[in-house]
Amino acid sequence: MSHPERAFISLTTDFGAAYTGICSGVIARIAPGTHVLVLSDEVTRYSIVEGALLLGQALPYFPVGVHVGVVDPGVGTMRSAVAVRTGRGDVLIGPDNGLLAPAADRLGGAVEVRALEDTDFRLPVTSSTFHGRDIFAPAAAHVANGVELASFGPEIELLPLDLPTPVIGAGELMASVLYPDYFGSLILSARPEDLRAALGDVRHVEISGIRVPYAVTFGRVGLGEPLLFTDSSGWLALAINQGSAAERFGLGAGSTVTVRA
Amino acid sequence: MSHPERAFISLTTDFGAAYTGICSGVIARIAPGTHVLVLSDEVTRYSIVEGALLLGQALPYFPVGVHVGVVDPGVGTMRSAVAVRTGRGDVLIGPDNGLLAPAADRLGGAVEVRALEDTDFRLPVTSSTFHGRDIFAPAAAHVANGVELASFGPEIELLPLDLPTPVIGAGELMASVLYPDYFGSLILSARPEDLRAALGDVRHVEISGIRVPYAVTFGRVGLGEPLLFTDSSGWLALAINQGSAAERFGLGAGSTVTVRA
Amino acid sequence: MSHPERAFISLTTDFGAAYTGICSGVIARIAPGTHVLVLSDEVTRYSIVEGALLLGQALPYFPVGVHVGVVDPGVGTMRSAVAVRTGRGDVLIGPDNGLLAPAADRLGGAVEVRALEDTDFRLPVTSSTFHGRDIFAPAAAHVANGVELASFGPEIELLPLDLPTPVIGAGELMASVLYPDYFGSLILSARPEDLRAALGDVRHVEISGIRVPYAVTFGRVGLGEPLLFTDSSGWLALAINQGSAAERFGLGAGSTVTVRA
Repeated sequence: MSHPERAFISLTTDFGAAYTGICSGVIARIAPGTHVLVLSDEVTRYSIVEGALLLGQALPYFPVGVHVGVVDPGVGTMRSAVAVRTGRGDVLIGPDNGLLAPAADRLGGAVEVRALEDTDFRLPVTSSTFHGRDIFAPAAAHVANGVELASFGPEIELLPLDLPTPVIGAGELMASVLYPDYFGSLILSARPEDLRAALGDVRHVEISGIRVPYAVTFGRVGLGEPLLFTDSSGWLALAINQGSAAERFGLGAGSTVTVRA
Repeated sequence: MSHPERAFISLTTDFGAAYTGICSGVIARIAPGTHVLVLSDEVTRYSIVEGALLLGQALPYFPVGVHVGVVDPGVGTMRSAVAVRTGRGDVLIGPDNGLLAPAADRLGGAVEVRALEDTDFRLPVTSSTFHGRDIFAPAAAHVANGVELASFGPEIELLPLDLPTPVIGAGELMASVLYPDYFGSLILSARPEDLRAALGDVRHVEISGIRVPYAVTFGRVGLGEPLLFTDSSGWLALAINQGSAAERFGLGAGSTVTVRA
Repeated sequence: MSHPERAFISLTTDFGAAYTGICSGVIARIAPGTHVLVLSDEVTRYSIVEGALLLGQALPYFPVGVHVGVVDPGVGTMRSAVAVRTGRGDVLIGPDNGLLAPAADRLGGAVEVRALEDTDFRLPVTSSTFHGRDIFAPAAAHVANGVELASFGPEIELLPLDLPTPVIGAGELMASVLYPDYFGSLILSARPEDLRAALGDVRHVEISGIRVPYAVTFGRVGLGEPLLFTDSSGWLALAINQGSAAERFGLGAGSTVTVRA
């Protein structure tokens, strides 16, 4: 990132528009020529898992750049702030709470992890509640300006993301809802191969007493009907064609789902 | 678009921030210097009419460029993906479900319509549920990079938008709610000239038994009071001054409204 | 702003994505090279106070530039449209309803205030309901292109923002809720020094019969517990750790809050 033609920074937060816009403004002030793209300002509040999976899903499609993620229920506690250089050459910046781990994995692994401790690269006054503005956005801008990661602080270990694992039983698969997506589809903590291991090759499954086709596309089921499919990031997902599975099944993040043949 | 100084791409979706942000990232990767502007990521889910009318209303104010629209309830079915060159010189990209038709009309007409079939201009792996990321965003980026429309696929006919027509009766005008806008104003499928044809020159009308001034501006009615006016895109609209007509009248997209003198 | 390398324009509205996107498009058409950053399109509808405080809080972190604010319940009435040059060198553009006053104060004061009257700098057709598109966005683009403020219209006085003042009583502080923020924290019309004047140095307070720690950070209270703290813009704020104080206390914009020792 030392001599980019035009540095690229992405922002992903659970802040809504205004607090995210303030972070963009901080970057525009410190690193004026930078291309800033908001990947999302709509991550569910405090949902580290949703934010982490979004970053892991999205960033491989992005240019190599600096990517800021802030879903930070522990702001103002002892959790570290980190910058992570990836194998692909990106720099990930955010709280060290698991949020950045899947993206680091997908981008070639974490090859250098630094604690953001040097106060020269923070805003002059740092609040205890808005590190997006005061620590993370400035750090990203300074990296875009060519500051080396080693300048920010000591090397540390990146914390992994704590994800539920599916349980493959005799004739059933138990998974958790990782998060409901924007369309109300329930993203499950299981992959197609987990389903195959539990149930073999099936065309239909049963969830909450409801028969659900296992289909590749919404076009295969009628309007308002359920389907189980592999979502665009590779997880199993329970959806309603043009409706909300979260509402229909009454399930949300953390709910347990049992899939039977 | 072959040799733009800096190509301009707009995005309009019913995806919310995150899925739209992924599309922006795909474009930034394939066509790095491009100016990408999100017109909206908040079109009501699956509402082709709302998205189509937004594109038709907004794009005449935009620079000539590449404009991606994705409201796509039929993703994964046989509906075509299209690129449309307009008389003004824009290229519209999206599903061929009526979404792009009003914008094409407003921008000088569709002068060339191509099916997006050549897989060279898609992402290497194409999902069945996220064509915004896999087909439409890459196509837009390639057009911005100078790829000719003829390279994408064969010429086809653009499907029109299916819009309800107002019924001009004896002393009444029957119209449909096209969509409620962000402020809860109900955009109706009728123009001022339809009202005049049905009722003559009126200063007040009656809707759902409520007397409603026909006024040019919110400033003419009291706080919380209704008015019928011509909205900024030329449709008749039913609104509440600083309130929501959708809530007050209990109406939504597709509802029928009868306007009497 | 006459000869910027690349002019910077920010937009802050209560319009939602689509109507704000149209304003961005208008700017991109008139001033193509400009860097446009949406600070927020999510200000609560018609909430001049919330918009004004957001602008006052955010813009000092932004580059010197042109900043458009539109929260405009009086659109189409006699309220003026203004451009304000600040001591720092910014130009603020919007309705003259108090919205721009705190930002002007924070950016070195209003050194020149002009009514936006010259129709050369509006769109050719001006609606009575969408001045963001027809008047404010074009004005910003023309300023970015180097048009002098004096060209827009006569000098006028900027209206101040009407803000509630806290009441410092014997052993109690009465304040109003200015607005609930994105996380449901209640931003109060009082500063830490008001609390000290009313209650002295306290570690806990009582609000609505509930004992609330007065703490600097969320990390000092348990999950789901309340705290009173100084928010990132310097106001006292009532919050719930990872929850919504607006919901818990049943309070919203304009509610009165009494803080006792």
